[in-house]
This record gives sequence, structure tokens and C-alpha cells, in this order.
Amino acid sequence: MPDFAAPVSRLIDELKRLPGIGQKTAQRLAFHLMRVDGEEALALAEAIRGARESVHACPVCGNLTDVDPCLYCGGPGRNRKTICVVEEATNILSIEKTRQYGGLYHVLGGALSPLGGIGPEKLNIKSLLERLKSGIVEEVIIATNPTVEGEATAMYLSKLLKPLGVRVTRIATGVPVGSELEYADEVTMLKAMEGRREL
Amino acid sequence: MPDFAAPVSRLIDELKRLPGIGQKTAQRLAFHLMRVDGEEALALAEAIRGARESVHACPVCGNLTDVDPCLYCGGPGRNRKTICVVEEATNILSIEKTRQYGGLYHVLGGALSPLGGIGPEKLNIKSLLERLKSGIVEEVIIATNPTVEGEATAMYLSKLLKPLGVRVTRIATGVPVGSELEYADEVTMLKAMEGRREL
Repeated sequence: MPDFAAPVSRLIDELKRLPGIGQKTAQRLAFHLMRVDGEEALALAEAIRGARESVHACPVCGNLTDVDPCLYCGGPGRNRKTICVVEEATNILSIEKTRQYGGLYHVLGGALSPLGGIGPEKLNIKSLLERLKSGIVEEVIIATNPTVEGEATAMYLSKLLKPLGVRVTRIATGVPVGSELEYADEVTMLKAMEGRREL
Repeated sequence: MPDFAAPVSRLIDELKRLPGIGQKTAQRLAFHLMRVDGEEALALAEAIRGARESVHACPVCGNLTDVDPCLYCGGPGRNRKTICVVEEATNILSIEKTRQYGGLYHVLGGALSPLGGIGPEKLNIKSLLERLKSGIVEEVIIATNPTVEGEATAMYLSKLLKPLGVRVTRIATGVPVGSELEYADEVTMLKAMEGRREL
């Protein structure tokens, strides 16, 4: 049974490879791209190509950038005494949104996962050690995800970095602001109790 | 505050123009496209470009196609006595999925919408009249959406086509199979009662 013209099927197949895009959404997006002006559709194709061609990992911190060093590493107003370590470049945005952190970043490119075959050698750790050699950095904040892999990575980094005489801290885990205790899972609740502070 | 590298921001902006894609999803998709092999990302860009360049409306029925006439109009096994009229090319798939309809299609490219400024002259109606001239077609099934616009379009087409001596039918509206009456809205329920059949 003929379904779609071959180039449309090919577009649907490529769209389906995107995370969270299934057959129905891919079809909807493909038909949208067929319906809009040619210019708008080609602008997306061009944006993908342009981003892939010009964007690469910052040689200092591993963030995605089109300039060397990246906007954070090269930013004039950033506090160079603190490095916040994250798993992915996209996590930087979550921290920037707080508008309170003005330090530098370091992107690991993932988290330790023995089952997934990701050991320390696959993460961007060596360049982090390089950055600490200058002696300017006073604190490393480990902001990996509060998952099994993220916690394992935090523990590993903490053991690795503490002997270098730098302060190593970990972001707090607990009940999210605006949530209700009723809906907190027991591990989060336990962490919230453990991490209680004086009022 | 620097957020993303400019080419990544541009990609996010282009992705956000897709239907149902907001800021967060666009960011996730963009970072995915930055993370996968270059080849996979460029395959998507190329699929968009390729589809836009080779795919156009079938000169006979208006379906999206890369060959003239399209796979349905040119299909050897299709019943040429019946034409099913749909609003968009994507609706053809819903009908093909039933595996029961073997006739031809006609894509209007939308529905009548006086408020939206879409009159009969903006729809692919003239070529439908052309197709009926040969006298081969015996039945036109109107499968526009069961919305105000779709119903108005169905009424309009019915008045236009009946004088040509062709049988004009409309797909049934009623409670969907597998649903519960409790959740049917009153208009659907009314249509289901009106459209009742002898058992």
C-alpha cells in the first residue's frame, strides 16, 4: 500500500530519530515542513548544518561553543575562583537561570556508568585537573544529576580533587520548592531530613 | 548573560517554529542534534531539503508526491469509480490504515472558513470538478473533519456535486469504537442517535 512519497517517508524517518518524537509527531512535523514556505523549512535545514559545522566543545571547559574559548571561559565578568562541574552542556542553562552563580563551568560529557561502559577515561576529567593546576580555583561545585550515576561521579571526583587542596562541594538534594511533602519519594525525603539546617 | 552559542540559539529558534515544539523541547532537540554523529544530524537537514525540493502537490488530486501522478492516482489496483475528499494530504493515511478503501483521493488543502478568510476559491475544488467530467466517478465520499469548518465544506461540496449526477456521501459521526458513552460529549451523542441503524 503506498503511504507517503519517498522523500516524505525519509523525512519522517529522520525526524523519528529525535528524542521524544514518535511516528505520529514525526508525521505532523513532516507535513508542517511540507506546508510552510520553502524558506522556513530550508532555514531549519540550514540551522542544523550551520550549528553542526561551527559548534564544537570549548577546549577549556567542554561547553558547546562557536568561539574559543566559550562565552563563560572567556567572559570578563566571571569569577575564576569557582568551577561548577556539570554532566551536559545543557545543564549550564539551569544554573545560569538562578542568576546567582557567576563562576566558571566544566562539562564532563556524561556520568560514570560501569554498566553503560562509561569509565572516568571517557569523561572530560583530565582537562579539569589541568585547570586546577594554576592554583587560582578555590572551590569545585559538583552539580552532576542526583541519580545513581551522578552521585557516583560526584564521589569519584571528590576523592580525586580533595587531595589537590581545593574545596569540593555538592549541590543540595531535598524536596523541591513549591512541592508538597505528600508527593516526595522516600529517598528525596530522607535526603531532605539528612540535609536539614539550623533556622 | 551568555546562554548558548549563536548557531545553537538559531537552531533552537528554528525548531521552536515547528508545531507543538516549545522552548524546552527545542533545547532538548538542539542538544541532541549537537551530540549525535555529524552524519545523523546532517541526514535530517538533507531530508528536509530533499523533501522540499522533490515533493509537490499531485496535479490530479493534490496529494503530496514526488512522482506525477501520485501513487494513488497512478496506482494500477485502485478503484477509479470512487473519490474520497479529504482536507489535508496527511488525512489519506488515516483512511488507508483501515485497509478497506481502495479508491482515489482528492485533497482540498483545508476547509471553508469565512472567519479565517478561506473561501471556496482557496481550496482545490476546481480540479475536483474537472475529475468528475469524465463520468467514470460514481461516488464522492466527503471525509473532511467533523468540525464546524469541515461540516460546512461537506455541505458546500454536496450542493455543488449532486447536480452533476454523482452520488455524494459523508463519513459517519458517532461515538468512537472502544470509548464509553459516559465520556461522549452531547453533540457526538446526538449525532450517534441521529445516525442509528437497523440491527
